[in-house]
Amino acid sequence: MPVGTQGTVKTCSPNELKTAGSQIILGNTYHLYLRPGHEIIEKAGGLQKFSNWNMPMLTDSGGFQVYSLSDLRKISDERVVFKSHLDGSYHEFTPEIAMDIQMSLGSDIMMVLDECPPYPCTDEYAAQAVERTSKWAKRCLEKVRNTEPKLGYDQVAFAIVQGSTSIELRKKSAYALIELDFPGYAIGGLSIGEPKPILFEMVDTCTDLLPTSKPRYLMGMGKPEDIVEGISLGVDMFDCVLPTRNARKGQVFTWNGKMNMRNAQYKEDFKPIDENCGCYACTGFTRAYIRHLLHAEEILGMRLASIHNIHFYHDLVTRCRNEIYADNFSNWKLMFFNNYHSTN
Amino acid sequence: MPVGTQGTVKTCSPNELKTAGSQIILGNTYHLYLRPGHEIIEKAGGLQKFSNWNMPMLTDSGGFQVYSLSDLRKISDERVVFKSHLDGSYHEFTPEIAMDIQMSLGSDIMMVLDECPPYPCTDEYAAQAVERTSKWAKRCLEKVRNTEPKLGYDQVAFAIVQGSTSIELRKKSAYALIELDFPGYAIGGLSIGEPKPILFEMVDTCTDLLPTSKPRYLMGMGKPEDIVEGISLGVDMFDCVLPTRNARKGQVFTWNGKMNMRNAQYKEDFKPIDENCGCYACTGFTRAYIRHLLHAEEILGMRLASIHNIHFYHDLVTRCRNEIYADNFSNWKLMFFNNYHSTN
Repeated sequence: MPVGTQGTVKTCSPNELKTAGSQIILGNTYHLYLRPGHEIIEKAGGLQKFSNWNMPMLTDSGGFQVYSLSDLRKISDERVVFKSHLDGSYHEFTPEIAMDIQMSLGSDIMMVLDECPPYPCTDEYAAQAVERTSKWAKRCLEKVRNTEPKLGYDQVAFAIVQGSTSIELRKKSAYALIELDFPGYAIGGLSIGEPKPILFEMVDTCTDLLPTSKPRYLMGMGKPEDIVEGISLGVDMFDCVLPTRNARKGQVFTWNGKMNMRNAQYKEDFKPIDENCGCYACTGFTRAYIRHLLHAEEILGMRLASIHNIHFYHDLVTRCRNEIYADNFSNWKLMFFNNYHSTN
Repeated sequence: MPVGTQGTVKTCSPNELKTAGSQIILGNTYHLYLRPGHEIIEKAGGLQKFSNWNMPMLTDSGGFQVYSLSDLRKISDERVVFKSHLDGSYHEFTPEIAMDIQMSLGSDIMMVLDECPPYPCTDEYAAQAVERTSKWAKRCLEKVRNTEPKLGYDQVAFAIVQGSTSIELRKKSAYALIELDFPGYAIGGLSIGEPKPILFEMVDTCTDLLPTSKPRYLMGMGKPEDIVEGISLGVDMFDCVLPTRNARKGQVFTWNGKMNMRNAQYKEDFKPIDENCGCYACTGFTRAYIRHLLHAEEILGMRLASIHNIHFYHDLVTRCRNEIYADNFSNWKLMFFNNYHSTN
């Protein structure tokens, strides 16, 4: 899922995303709640209509942004009170409020309000966050089950497994949430600074327990190589700002690894970013031109790099899916890593 | 002509421009000479190929930017020496160099190097600039006639009438250039601070003299109402940054006048910018959404406003052309001004 924090995937238009292969976009509840406000989006008929996307959307609960972006004031079993990063105003999220906002946003997949502890944190804090996340998940589910859809169509809620870097707590969290029978499960609280081997051990622990019949979603990761690794551990869904954020700095991804299009070596390079890529950027524009645009601070440069990266990520996961269907994923994965790192 | 100063119309892609109705783009020689350098663009096969535009382009001579942007060091009958606004390096343009650079850029229409005096200026300075502009025009024409095309196709040069705000000097400049038999003529040195009635008097003076069988191009103007006025005086071609520059600040144009999409009144306004407009912005996006994007500093907001404005400008001149064909331009112009100013 490309990330559309404020109701738009940065620099891209909906038709570009569809052409690049996007099927679902992630929106950020915290940002959209603060601006333009969920009431306006509800009046527009939901985030899909508001943003002219008209395809599935997933929204996070706002929890992660409250912990990472706002001046966090106080968290209790009942609520989290926080200060807006935009104007310093005070706001509160309860599990019920977080679902209510997402019901106004009209996202097809809503995420429960969770508590995401920082890395590293004490075992006590991590255990307490697991407890609270389980209790809040239950309250979220009840809120959704007891509320008529605001926009006339069904919305589902996914739970989020927490547990920091403890195998024991991850298992405890997963069991508690599976008990509640959610239609999908996310793995949260990772990609926040912990070493990669620990991250994948936690993912492995979770996907071993989470039902294979339901989507498993690893939140906030990552690099192409990490996505391939995550898929090999059974993850079905990903979101990350990386393809678009890095694109705006000139970094693009290919099957051979990453390149920085600002580099002097591309000054007179009239090949496309990737000759085998069928995206809008690669079918019409050269490395030399994109480099020029980036240096001249022209928006089209960021646009072309973003379109290419999103297209590449969709190509990558499509390839993974097809290799799984062909029962060839493990072989292919070795080949991918050989090529991908070769020019890195 | 939309303005693509650095080889791209700001925020827009070539396919968006074609969809909006653009047929020719203006590029700025001064900017492209300094970055990425005309040699690179020549190696790419010309500015059209470099920028994936593949339709006609016009380039200015760089003269106006030397006078307005750079630290101008010295102008003589032979050359103008100037300091780059990017890195302070010294450069020189002669009439021959200005044409040579544009032959590397491969623009279909090249502009002669002229001297554009500021407004106001003394009669002596204006007269001297007319003299120099005539001499330089002749040297430019000789350079073009005596040089093989660098990119394998014909390029033409247009002359530029100067003369500041003097009817006498404008006539003198026009006569001298007509004598040289250029394939097209521009009116330069206007829209630089002089009162509108004086501007139009100068335009009228020039179009009275310039041959109707050749394109007459008013450089650097303007607002929709000014373009209609210019057309009524016989102008065939225009360029201006206004539709794209103002779009980036949220200002959009409609048949009823201009609107600022950042305004609070559009917060919950789910109509398109203009219900009768067929552009990409108006067929999929609401005022409320565009307002949100602009306030959230999302690039898509600037893109949608730019696309709309370019589409509107092309609609406007298409309408003018059709009213002229229908021998109804004068009537239509009255109607246009009644509607256009009504909500301004």
